[in-house]
Amino acid sequence: MHLTIYVIDAERKDRVIKVLAESHLDAMICNAASAVLLLSGYWPVMGASVVTFTKEGEVEVVLPEDEVELAGRTSGASLIPYQPSTLAALTTPIDSLAEPLRLLTARLGLSNATIGLQFDEGMQPATYASSLHFRSSLTNLLRQLLPKANYRSCDKALEQMEACKTPKELNAVQRASEIAAAGFEHVDDVLQVGRREAEIAAALQAAFQASTKAQAVERSYGFFFCMSGPNSARASAAYARTRQRPIAAGDLVMIHANTCADGYWTDITRTYTAGTPSDRQKKMHSAIFEARKKALQAIRPGAAACDVDRAARAVMNSHGFGDAFKHSTGHGVGFAAANANALPRIHPQSPDVLEVGMTFNVEPAAYFDGYGGMRHCDVVALTSEGASVFTKF
Amino acid sequence: MHLTIYVIDAERKDRVIKVLAESHLDAMICNAASAVLLLSGYWPVMGASVVTFTKEGEVEVVLPEDEVELAGRTSGASLIPYQPSTLAALTTPIDSLAEPLRLLTARLGLSNATIGLQFDEGMQPATYASSLHFRSSLTNLLRQLLPKANYRSCDKALEQMEACKTPKELNAVQRASEIAAAGFEHVDDVLQVGRREAEIAAALQAAFQASTKAQAVERSYGFFFCMSGPNSARASAAYARTRQRPIAAGDLVMIHANTCADGYWTDITRTYTAGTPSDRQKKMHSAIFEARKKALQAIRPGAAACDVDRAARAVMNSHGFGDAFKHSTGHGVGFAAANANALPRIHPQSPDVLEVGMTFNVEPAAYFDGYGGMRHCDVVALTSEGASVFTKF
Repeated sequence: MHLTIYVIDAERKDRVIKVLAESHLDAMICNAASAVLLLSGYWPVMGASVVTFTKEGEVEVVLPEDEVELAGRTSGASLIPYQPSTLAALTTPIDSLAEPLRLLTARLGLSNATIGLQFDEGMQPATYASSLHFRSSLTNLLRQLLPKANYRSCDKALEQMEACKTPKELNAVQRASEIAAAGFEHVDDVLQVGRREAEIAAALQAAFQASTKAQAVERSYGFFFCMSGPNSARASAAYARTRQRPIAAGDLVMIHANTCADGYWTDITRTYTAGTPSDRQKKMHSAIFEARKKALQAIRPGAAACDVDRAARAVMNSHGFGDAFKHSTGHGVGFAAANANALPRIHPQSPDVLEVGMTFNVEPAAYFDGYGGMRHCDVVALTSEGASVFTKF
Repeated sequence: MHLTIYVIDAERKDRVIKVLAESHLDAMICNAASAVLLLSGYWPVMGASVVTFTKEGEVEVVLPEDEVELAGRTSGASLIPYQPSTLAALTTPIDSLAEPLRLLTARLGLSNATIGLQFDEGMQPATYASSLHFRSSLTNLLRQLLPKANYRSCDKALEQMEACKTPKELNAVQRASEIAAAGFEHVDDVLQVGRREAEIAAALQAAFQASTKAQAVERSYGFFFCMSGPNSARASAAYARTRQRPIAAGDLVMIHANTCADGYWTDITRTYTAGTPSDRQKKMHSAIFEARKKALQAIRPGAAACDVDRAARAVMNSHGFGDAFKHSTGHGVGFAAANANALPRIHPQSPDVLEVGMTFNVEPAAYFDGYGGMRHCDVVALTSEGASVFTKF
């Protein structure tokens, strides 16, 4: 019903079919935006889309009518629109998609199927100002529509697929990283003593949002943060936070960004000095860049992720910054924006093994309470030759 | 364990206790960010917080350690921190909060309780670049911890409580609206023929983000959109979308924003003309402002929400713009950012009745495919005297 002009990712399709076979699943039916993106190539706006992917490789997305045009330009899947609500009737998404989903699952012959659903916790990047959470309602609807089907968790299978990108997805993550550069390239113009963190973050985010680089994708948006002086020491937390503090001479100033290009996310941090770096800051910088170098050298196909963390941590320890390096060396990025549990986890206790196509961040850092923090966080992909840094700015 | 300096909203507490009694619930246990905000006053960052509210009025939030300081400044609830992960162990939020939640629910004596949980679909505003979805994992954990408890949906009760704000919450929504003005006040400086939509949206968002008005709250962020000429006609969709189109002379230019101040959201649209308004644009403007006036006059305690829609729609019809007014006249705003199903629904088919304390938007509009759209969307509260417009700019 909709002319798709986008070429499907054949490699991704093959991989999903293989995973379905290995998992003894007849289909996956998913709603999380990152799962819809992985399985169909479409990054939903309102979170109200449902993707079905069968073992035969048939992919359909049941989605709000208002998203059909956008989806048609980014996904090769068949698109089945529904109207969440009309002026004639007050309905909700789950009400409105029930009938199209019934017709679809009947046509796909899923009545006795074994179907993978998402039951486990998971981090989900922001798709819009607001997005739909189905909670139990989608599972309950499926149990009504297909009472004889067998439902199993496909969370682990999705997590593993999200970790290793196809060549097409690697390009998408690289492109997202290049677009994010549009913010960081303006730091020299923007970072001035006396300006508040909020002003600096706003100016960088504006440079990013207004950039013509974003013309390469349908939707580009994201979040820039600025943390200065003692506030930068708090950036070891699970989240970044811009405050109203004015930059003081000599401050460490950390700029962090999570940006999105058609659903592919970045996780990037750079740290600057307001003025001439002090000896202490130079020492932190040396240690962090040496740790980064050792981590990048340790990244190769088949390497244990914990060994990459160990390589970075050993450098920080040798500079006396072991305790200041408060978090892991990295984690998966791309389908995830900020998720320390996304594979591969570059963590001291990680059982993960690095594979070609994985994209993750490498973020050696040192944080000193009351003084400041320094972090350098790159988006990195693993190729057959080793680490390829996507954030070369 | 944490000195709270924030005064709890006693009125909200009383209302929740009353709703628990009426619903025959011993407690609610919720995770959705807007529910945590409603029940505890805290707007979570990473979505990994769980609030418990008992019929005795005891309120606790189990939350990531990194959010304790922030929560302590905005919530009067008892805060029970957990560490989602450490360098010593790779764990996830649900792993890590299991033990504190077990201790808490045991101490609260909930083993045979009737507990309200969130099962139904719901729109959730963005709390950060990424946020946790527990999906079924929190319910499953509770069923393990309290196997004899009785679990019921508290979705409807929450929806209804979210609709009617307490005086303290009304202030918070008003403050959010005032902070959002910081973006719109810059339109005259920013809107120029030849500038791209993306540049204009970025500049307004930057003005908003950098504003000192935001110093009134802990966290202020949001989304500004610009849609011009034919693109503004598409703004009747469920979502706004900024593109790269340059503004042309004579264009209608729609600026839409959803902004957040400590979890309280706005939904605001203004439409401008690039140059001198044409007769057609003047006619649209007259109709929309007359419809707005009639809607505001119809807003009073006890009024049927459908009658408010009817009042606005009758004006649009009388100007020949009936078909161009493609959506409902408004919906609940405040705990919701962009949710056409948030109460009260100012919709032709709405069964909702307006009550003092409700906050919602009033958004008469006219959209003409290929030409352009005009919408004027205010955040409005219902007081005993009638409609109070929070977005007087």
